[in-house]
Amino acid sequence: MNPIVMALPGSEALARALAAELGGEAGALSCHQFPDHETLVRLDADVRGRCLVLAASLDRADDKTLPLLFAADAARDLGAACVVLAAPYLGYMRQDARFHPGEAITSRTYAALLSRSFDGLATVDPHLHRYRSLDEIYTIPSRVVRSAPAIAQWIRDNVPDPVLVGPDSESEQWVAEVAGRCGAPWTVLQKTRRGDRDVEVSLPDATQWRQRTPVLVDDIVSSARTMIEAAAGLRLCGMPPPVCIGVHAVFAAGAYEELLASGVARVVTCDSVPHPSNGIPIVPALAVGVRELLAAAIAPRPLP
Amino acid sequence: MNPIVMALPGSEALARALAAELGGEAGALSCHQFPDHETLVRLDADVRGRCLVLAASLDRADDKTLPLLFAADAARDLGAACVVLAAPYLGYMRQDARFHPGEAITSRTYAALLSRSFDGLATVDPHLHRYRSLDEIYTIPSRVVRSAPAIAQWIRDNVPDPVLVGPDSESEQWVAEVAGRCGAPWTVLQKTRRGDRDVEVSLPDATQWRQRTPVLVDDIVSSARTMIEAAAGLRLCGMPPPVCIGVHAVFAAGAYEELLASGVARVVTCDSVPHPSNGIPIVPALAVGVRELLAAAIAPRPLP
Repeated sequence: MNPIVMALPGSEALARALAAELGGEAGALSCHQFPDHETLVRLDADVRGRCLVLAASLDRADDKTLPLLFAADAARDLGAACVVLAAPYLGYMRQDARFHPGEAITSRTYAALLSRSFDGLATVDPHLHRYRSLDEIYTIPSRVVRSAPAIAQWIRDNVPDPVLVGPDSESEQWVAEVAGRCGAPWTVLQKTRRGDRDVEVSLPDATQWRQRTPVLVDDIVSSARTMIEAAAGLRLCGMPPPVCIGVHAVFAAGAYEELLASGVARVVTCDSVPHPSNGIPIVPALAVGVRELLAAAIAPRPLP
Repeated sequence: MNPIVMALPGSEALARALAAELGGEAGALSCHQFPDHETLVRLDADVRGRCLVLAASLDRADDKTLPLLFAADAARDLGAACVVLAAPYLGYMRQDARFHPGEAITSRTYAALLSRSFDGLATVDPHLHRYRSLDEIYTIPSRVVRSAPAIAQWIRDNVPDPVLVGPDSESEQWVAEVAGRCGAPWTVLQKTRRGDRDVEVSLPDATQWRQRTPVLVDDIVSSARTMIEAAAGLRLCGMPPPVCIGVHAVFAAGAYEELLASGVARVVTCDSVPHPSNGIPIVPALAVGVRELLAAAIAPRPLP
């Protein structure tokens, strides 16, 4: 039977798109916060014997997680055959170590919370830095969808004569892959620290790129500091204004406006986090991952 | 070894009072919310081999729960011998049934979340309505501290010639107990529904009580509608302005001000939720429950 897809508030467009891709049915999930800051969650569809896909982009994770866990638990309680999480942006991946004594490694606790409530997790390019795979912290099957093909396609369609630019050495592998997929040259900015608060960003061999449009690519754009500093570095090297591409448009308050005002040509993001800058569709690829998880979740298992 | 007591933000006074009662050490817990609405939690004390008491009044539970779970997990990860929750107000107890089809029974999910993270739970008069005991949903040892003795003591010390008044029939047992403990008469208001939005509240045999000060007692004061309607009913019956006592000062925005302006003599609450109306100390009784849990958590267990 086809799955039911429900959205956490804010992810309604994602749920509709997923339901269409999966040939599933959209069901309503209502979340009501009482004046005492407790939330009532209601599933407005009969999930008995059905697979439920909860669509929730997990930016602003603190506000969304309890309702998400309540909804997953309710679905199981109401007889759902399986409950899969489609979270194109997966929160709480950045605290992947104890950077100072006494710190909580929140990525682990968060992974344990979601792993207990869902039968599977599909996401887009999670922030894997110290973890090599989601399997290090998530105990449920997961599908990681790569955004590089969609980003490369967008660059091919929209930017003549691009040069891909990674804002720092961490982004090297990622930028090289996107560049390879769209047949463009690539390079990575160099940071020279002159003091505690004085970082110079420069482009090696800038002269050879001046006839091309620089395309800055990064995974999460939150404060947008990295992008803004990189754009300033490119300007100092005499490059044209860059096109800025972010996978996940997390954008802290005011950050998008600041980035737009910093002399960039354009800001484009994948639709993993709903945002006015969205321009690169990633939901079709996410649907492929969700479909695989659904198939695995309801597959008959060998008797023990 | 004596326990370390740490406060979730907002429960600092509770933690200090508990540390003093338990002969424990106060330790700092820092919670920092990033601009992307994820929280960093840090325990600023060495918890290795120690028992940790996390003090957190769980009003506004949606805002506090993830940091609480992160802190508990971090303590265990950092080698704490046990982690006990002192939550004088326990959130998510009111949704104790599926009142409409498809609703999440959030009390159960919430109890499961806390039960996985803590070795014990001490609380004050949780809202037990359809559940007879916390053990129906919490799988960890718990201690329920009754506020009736402290409330009765406060009435004896502060209200001459009281008559205790329960705002509705649900409160009967509770009001009878407090009245018994302070040797005062008691009664319960009657509600007569005249239409969808027209409820008349009246006091049976009001004439016999007119020389006494009415004391309204209820467990959770949130919107304060029950108290305000009860006070209006008492006024119509020719009673003096009531003293209003609530166990848990949850108070939604504006509700306290509205109650104060509704012609009541005074509003007093237990200190289970920090609030300007706090006047009845409950922390010493809570400390007794916490001490029992700590003793049970570190007691040697028989070999299997």
